[in-house]
Amino acid sequence: MGEFDLIATYFGPAPVRRARLGIGDDCALLGDLSPGHCLAVSTDLLLEGRHFFADVDPAALGWKSLAVNLSDLAAMGAEPMAFTLSLALPSIDERWLAGFSRGLLELAAQHQCELVGGDTTRGPLTVGITIVGQVPPGLALRRDAGRAGDDLWVSGPLGAAAYAVRERLAGRALAPGHPACERLERPWPRVALGRALRGLGHAAIDLSDGLLGDLGHVCRRSRLGARVHWPAVPVHPALDGLEEHSRRALALAGGDDYELLFSAPASARERIATLPVPGAGAPVRIGELVSEPGVRVLDDRGQPIDTDGFAAFDHFR
Amino acid sequence: MGEFDLIATYFGPAPVRRARLGIGDDCALLGDLSPGHCLAVSTDLLLEGRHFFADVDPAALGWKSLAVNLSDLAAMGAEPMAFTLSLALPSIDERWLAGFSRGLLELAAQHQCELVGGDTTRGPLTVGITIVGQVPPGLALRRDAGRAGDDLWVSGPLGAAAYAVRERLAGRALAPGHPACERLERPWPRVALGRALRGLGHAAIDLSDGLLGDLGHVCRRSRLGARVHWPAVPVHPALDGLEEHSRRALALAGGDDYELLFSAPASARERIATLPVPGAGAPVRIGELVSEPGVRVLDDRGQPIDTDGFAAFDHFR
Repeated sequence: MGEFDLIATYFGPAPVRRARLGIGDDCALLGDLSPGHCLAVSTDLLLEGRHFFADVDPAALGWKSLAVNLSDLAAMGAEPMAFTLSLALPSIDERWLAGFSRGLLELAAQHQCELVGGDTTRGPLTVGITIVGQVPPGLALRRDAGRAGDDLWVSGPLGAAAYAVRERLAGRALAPGHPACERLERPWPRVALGRALRGLGHAAIDLSDGLLGDLGHVCRRSRLGARVHWPAVPVHPALDGLEEHSRRALALAGGDDYELLFSAPASARERIATLPVPGAGAPVRIGELVSEPGVRVLDDRGQPIDTDGFAAFDHFR
Repeated sequence: MGEFDLIATYFGPAPVRRARLGIGDDCALLGDLSPGHCLAVSTDLLLEGRHFFADVDPAALGWKSLAVNLSDLAAMGAEPMAFTLSLALPSIDERWLAGFSRGLLELAAQHQCELVGGDTTRGPLTVGITIVGQVPPGLALRRDAGRAGDDLWVSGPLGAAAYAVRERLAGRALAPGHPACERLERPWPRVALGRALRGLGHAAIDLSDGLLGDLGHVCRRSRLGARVHWPAVPVHPALDGLEEHSRRALALAGGDDYELLFSAPASARERIATLPVPGAGAPVRIGELVSEPGVRVLDDRGQPIDTDGFAAFDHFR
């Protein structure tokens, strides 16, 4: 099976839904944007051994590869439109490809996000996705749009994905299907929540590198600081029974949760608390943005918790 | 230097020109499309050892990584708008990064195509670019738009890039700056020509895999065949002095030329022959599309040339 057969067999041509012209030409052609909308674009590159384990279920990898990109659109309040897929593969493994494309296209269909183009080559297993969506620019949830006094919210429980990674690296891999593995391998991008927050929230970011690191990005871009009330932080039940230091490290700095962290004025509190988050109930209020720089985490007595040991994930450190 | 410093130092924030919001958020936000235009999207993934030599000049690699994507827009007649960059790097080499970003951003500036987002990670050297542009959909140069009787044209001389690769692989590397190396390392995407062909040409494709292979894509998609007159094919002067079989193999199937191959009605002949192609004069007419399937190459007596040994490049063969 050659390169062109591979694309045709596993990835297209799909029934074209959004695109005027899908896979198979030099470019895909996408229809006009809705009136008043601009284009939102994001890209992610996933490498074996760095972003996923070599033995990951290919369907889960296909799902997650798109999920992390959908999550970026969610964090802008954007509506998904289409994506491209770049795939480097060490060899043609048809069973692997069938699983990968199944997981990928299952999530794509849920979000009506069309695969419109791609590139395949031989090489170390690498998945690159670029996603495009649309959002009215004045309603986009930008990292720099936080305001002092805003409430801080997260969309769901934190720490489980990092716990699954930690256990695996320690030689205590959790059983497949364990809730923490599901959180790691099948994150649910909060696309509907992001759209619901248009005009309601101010700043937003998706939690890929850990709460403290990602909150730091929002604070720097918004030129603000933040207070996080540790007892309010929704810690995933998979972490029950762990000692407190582990729970804090995993939930505050673990990464890979793909929940939304967002800020909103207190006036929006009641409406936000009733927004549905599938599998997680509703957003949880965990703190506030403040004018004083720096991110502080406070315990149940209002005393600062030392978080210096909780570094955000950085691929080059 | 960490991941976030790296992006800021070498790749942004650039003076934002086209984007409402560039590097540094979950997504970039691009402005509205021009009236009557739709979005054109393409992506390419380049791996060390497969698409470029490990010792390639980083500025040339930056240039070429964007050039091959601009070339895809050119082949649709689309106008470049913006691109994202995914970069896997084995380590932080600041000299390498400075060169790479210089070559990349030099070509980007020439085409007013803005870097709006990206992703960096540690791994085997990998460059992934996704580009977006715009084109009026009715004027896009689609592969399936060829018509029987159309003239076939190429935008410039063929075979030099493949010659440079062949000599290098045979242990006879050409000197840096040799015209064939320049063709390999600094291809000129034919963006202006592609735009000039709107409403004038029918089908188009850019020559990345070799004339015969890429012409085969056009024929299959247009449900046609083609005749190519070998004496009319513009062979790059770097191939002068090679024996005839090598000249044919390199010019007809060599790949990596990034010239445009396009079809147009005979009525457009005079106008096309005067369209400027920087560094290459003007487009050259090399044959025609025919209703009979298959691609045939004819010699100066009109006799078929055996091209069975000239396989199009396929990354998985």
